[in-house]
Amino acid sequence: MTSQVEHDRLANALRALSMDGVEKAKSGHPGLPMGMADVATVLFSRFLKFDAADPSWPDRDRFVLSAGHGSMLLYSLLHLTGYESVTLDEIKRFRQLHSKTPGHPENFVTPGVETTTGPLGQGLATAVGMALAERMLAAEFGEDLVDHYTYVIASDGDLMEGISHEAIALAGHLKLSRLIVLYDDNGISIDGPLSLADTVDQVKRFEAAGWLASRVDGHDPQAVAAAIADARTADRPVMIACRTTIGFGAPKKAGTSKAHGEPLGAEELAGAKAALKWEYGPFEIPTDIASAWRAIGERGRAAREEWQRRLAAAPQNTRDDFVRRLVGERPKALGPTISALKGKLIAEAPSIATRKASELVLEAVVPLLPEMAIGSADLTPSNNTRTKTAKAVNAADFSGRYIHYGIREFGMAAAMNGIALHGGFLPAGATFMVFTDYARPAMRLAALMGASVVYVMTHDSIGLGEDGPTHQPVEHLAALRAMPNMRVFRPADAVETAEAWQLALTRKDGPTVLALTRQNLPLLRKEPVESNLCAMGAYELSPAGGKPTATLFASGSEVEIAVAAQAQLAEKGIHARVVSVPSLELFLEQPEDVQKAVIGDAPIKVAIEAAVRFGWDAVIGHDGIFVGMATFGASGPYKDLYAYFGITAESVVERVTARHNG
Amino acid sequence: MTSQVEHDRLANALRALSMDGVEKAKSGHPGLPMGMADVATVLFSRFLKFDAADPSWPDRDRFVLSAGHGSMLLYSLLHLTGYESVTLDEIKRFRQLHSKTPGHPENFVTPGVETTTGPLGQGLATAVGMALAERMLAAEFGEDLVDHYTYVIASDGDLMEGISHEAIALAGHLKLSRLIVLYDDNGISIDGPLSLADTVDQVKRFEAAGWLASRVDGHDPQAVAAAIADARTADRPVMIACRTTIGFGAPKKAGTSKAHGEPLGAEELAGAKAALKWEYGPFEIPTDIASAWRAIGERGRAAREEWQRRLAAAPQNTRDDFVRRLVGERPKALGPTISALKGKLIAEAPSIATRKASELVLEAVVPLLPEMAIGSADLTPSNNTRTKTAKAVNAADFSGRYIHYGIREFGMAAAMNGIALHGGFLPAGATFMVFTDYARPAMRLAALMGASVVYVMTHDSIGLGEDGPTHQPVEHLAALRAMPNMRVFRPADAVETAEAWQLALTRKDGPTVLALTRQNLPLLRKEPVESNLCAMGAYELSPAGGKPTATLFASGSEVEIAVAAQAQLAEKGIHARVVSVPSLELFLEQPEDVQKAVIGDAPIKVAIEAAVRFGWDAVIGHDGIFVGMATFGASGPYKDLYAYFGITAESVVERVTARHNG
Repeated sequence: MTSQVEHDRLANALRALSMDGVEKAKSGHPGLPMGMADVATVLFSRFLKFDAADPSWPDRDRFVLSAGHGSMLLYSLLHLTGYESVTLDEIKRFRQLHSKTPGHPENFVTPGVETTTGPLGQGLATAVGMALAERMLAAEFGEDLVDHYTYVIASDGDLMEGISHEAIALAGHLKLSRLIVLYDDNGISIDGPLSLADTVDQVKRFEAAGWLASRVDGHDPQAVAAAIADARTADRPVMIACRTTIGFGAPKKAGTSKAHGEPLGAEELAGAKAALKWEYGPFEIPTDIASAWRAIGERGRAAREEWQRRLAAAPQNTRDDFVRRLVGERPKALGPTISALKGKLIAEAPSIATRKASELVLEAVVPLLPEMAIGSADLTPSNNTRTKTAKAVNAADFSGRYIHYGIREFGMAAAMNGIALHGGFLPAGATFMVFTDYARPAMRLAALMGASVVYVMTHDSIGLGEDGPTHQPVEHLAALRAMPNMRVFRPADAVETAEAWQLALTRKDGPTVLALTRQNLPLLRKEPVESNLCAMGAYELSPAGGKPTATLFASGSEVEIAVAAQAQLAEKGIHARVVSVPSLELFLEQPEDVQKAVIGDAPIKVAIEAAVRFGWDAVIGHDGIFVGMATFGASGPYKDLYAYFGITAESVVERVTARHNG
Repeated sequence: MTSQVEHDRLANALRALSMDGVEKAKSGHPGLPMGMADVATVLFSRFLKFDAADPSWPDRDRFVLSAGHGSMLLYSLLHLTGYESVTLDEIKRFRQLHSKTPGHPENFVTPGVETTTGPLGQGLATAVGMALAERMLAAEFGEDLVDHYTYVIASDGDLMEGISHEAIALAGHLKLSRLIVLYDDNGISIDGPLSLADTVDQVKRFEAAGWLASRVDGHDPQAVAAAIADARTADRPVMIACRTTIGFGAPKKAGTSKAHGEPLGAEELAGAKAALKWEYGPFEIPTDIASAWRAIGERGRAAREEWQRRLAAAPQNTRDDFVRRLVGERPKALGPTISALKGKLIAEAPSIATRKASELVLEAVVPLLPEMAIGSADLTPSNNTRTKTAKAVNAADFSGRYIHYGIREFGMAAAMNGIALHGGFLPAGATFMVFTDYARPAMRLAALMGASVVYVMTHDSIGLGEDGPTHQPVEHLAALRAMPNMRVFRPADAVETAEAWQLALTRKDGPTVLALTRQNLPLLRKEPVESNLCAMGAYELSPAGGKPTATLFASGSEVEIAVAAQAQLAEKGIHARVVSVPSLELFLEQPEDVQKAVIGDAPIKVAIEAAVRFGWDAVIGHDGIFVGMATFGASGPYKDLYAYFGITAESVVERVTARHNG
């Protein structure tokens, strides 16, 4: 048990480093680190299971600073406990280009940072995914190998964001008892007192979502410790509202919004250090406190070594599986299984929706991939994501691999990030393509973090028909293609669907969207090819019968239209090529000579896609013909819509012919 | 008071029409209309203030079907109460192209539909904006002219979506006592029983957010009526959880997910009609019931006529203002005020951030525009949206015009839609540009509905600096430009900012995004011009000194870089034009000859924008030079970032020179 004096000095070291770091950077947020230093000190010194020497130890407790703007708290903790990469020099380079201490925590930059936070609410929702992954992995491999907690520091902002509702409802429903949220209840936001904008009773709200919740004085270490100790034995997730003073110690700014997001200034900083009886210069940590913090960072070493012995003692099969799963390798049988499926599809030439083709792929590969954690935001029968033998996860049994996420697209995507970051799983989540808008902020974090997740986005165009424009994506392909490191596939038939899934399942450096149809499509890929033609983003599906006058580029359900137009044009003596473009942005990343070869030099370039033109000019040019959408869609049977919006082979033929003759 | 027998027949008419409509369309959702028919009958027959003969009567109660998939309930109500455009033929054309009865309610298609719903959670959040607008307008014009309720039917899906949290927290905080939510508590979602995915105690949850909440039997008209009567006298918003049976009456499918989203089928439909003792054929309504419903639709006529007399009796000034506000006309002085500001800016040539320039515009125009309801999602000091004399709205006083939305970007954008749809206000809401991702689903509905709202999106690029990639938009300009009917301006200096605001304030058919910088920019528009140069989306800012070799296209903060590059190129004897592109998508909507003239025929085309290339090929072509971002950003001082990512005049000069010499 730490004495109050020692506790204060440990906590003040966090405050001092945080103030100094922000001051030197002339930018940053001192208020949260100063306010939550006591809580963080209690958590790290008494509870958190970790070993600073091995930030990737699989059975460590996860600590998520959902309030990412308080990053200096996290960097101070990582530095003081001895994480190798967070040196004092890095603390001094806070918020500088290429430092290990960026403005908000970035897990791909700094070992010890579990997830990238800053966009509010998402740290909490990602932690829900981590806590779920922990239970699922424990159900599979046993608590000898998997037995840890997920702790979150969340701010008022995290709890005002809507995603917090989705996250806590899901966690409460699943009774994720290893999840403990420490809420920085400081009553201040950027505009001023929180009471300007919010009066929610957070304790009651969490209880309504099935959590245990309580209030403590966040500056009373014994009270905080008692609350955390209780929380660890609960049968459900726990929220502890820690009443704190933002900018604790700052003589004038403490308890005000002025402490939140800017340096204290020299005078106020000096006043704060005096008030805290911290007599040391900038970035100076006295030896006794440095040693005490370092000891905290080493506290978990024995536990880690014991865990490693348990792993080493596990049966070879278990050990190999566990390691493979955590490394994210896929079984060798995956490739042949996809190839066999492609062969079968070509032989049978089914006319099916690509969402149905996706289901066939899942039926084939899921048995090989126990790491697949698939789910849907309450559209399971429409997304075709649940395989025949899939068992659902529930609060009493985490051995299932199907997740009923509820009508929570954003919460689903954030939880998927947490599941992926935790390790051991490849999450795939489904909804309608149009609702990528709801999930988008978490999809962006997946792309930024390079998380391997798969979005199964069905009903990918006006082809969904009667539900109308609120449910018909038209700009979503463009919006997703524009996002760095997001890969979007819109397969044209069942074979391309299998290839797209293969690429998604084996991608190690980021997320993949599969945009799939509701409506049936004929099989267009009739020739067996061992290689994955989707891997280049675009390829010639059907050559011209002679020197080409036109090239018809299309994706997904419109490739069928391109092929039909090609035939009709041939009847008029106009030779056209068809290029299938399952992934426009992947194609635009290919070497320039590859792009030029696929684009070709036919004088007339046409793109056909039941979506907006935006982005296609990179292929067809300003003068290219675009057959697609220029407005939102409409409600009606899908064939009527295609006819009304002029996305037909006849329209393509007419426009190519007019251009050819003009 | 309606007898139980009469009530049942009124309600069963809704059920029968809904079943028949879905059956004929072979598509749609019978479950909600059948489950909520009793509640809707009570609401419309006893409480809702409306006159079917005048769907746009400003003082009508608003009814929002947040669970938009239950659209047949709404169409049945509109038809039976006598809304002219919803004829029986239109009911029979449910979900057909160009009918008045699309799959989800579309306010721009069907008079009587208050807002477009379907994307779950948003109807509720939009209704919060309507209820807020009612109180604000009442505070200004008095309850003689403004005195109505907003009623919402919400489903489990609405309440699972995160935005519901933002909405109810804001409504509870502001004590919007004229807001009454009828929750269709049917325990069923698409995947199956709600208990698969959700166990939130909704009554407790709403109470935690400051609402009154209760549970009633949704099939007991007296109980529902008593609960609504109580709700109307409450001092805060009220949620009534109505326990219902989805698909009420259907012998086999009632109470199951099979009743939710597909036609009942002939046999089940016949069984349901038998169970309900409804002896009539498809689309047949007996005369007595038709008359009773028609009388309900006429019940409000007297109240409307009294209201019109009160309006006519109001002072001329009040009347003119009120009518102008509801029509959405802007005062004539707006144009000259903007012109005068432009003149002043040109004279003073300030070097300021465009967020600061935006503040100057607001200081100039807000005194003219009492309809402006401005707010921020807790970034007021950063967004520069609060003018000096602005007074905040709060629960005790709705006469203010500044709204502290809290950290609720999505809730803010949806509330803005509701404020705009209610009428009387022009909402403007602010956050960081990167968080348009959070607000995007509501921004999309604004674009679809053609709602006039303004998004003040500051910190619009890596120019925000130290906060890092989580806070730096790079794909957001492209993602917003791709959205139909969304107008995006990224002004290059203070004069363009004034012009962009002018266009935003006078736009009547849709929303506008203003993408504004954190960092200072020099004044580039030095010549006084009366016309609004931003109105065409792009214009030549600086001609070449001779026959142009290159055209440099740029937007926002990068126009300064283009101008600097132009000067450096001139020193090397290379003539370049600079084209400012404050709105790329607006430019691409101009007639082809206008586009060609602005694009020009200089052989080298360069686009400079601190964002992704996606979309720019429409101007510069596949071979054009792009100086911008290809990845996410990084944390650091913004000048370091511009240098690191090569977005500099030197980089432009180097690449143009290389191309010129190559």
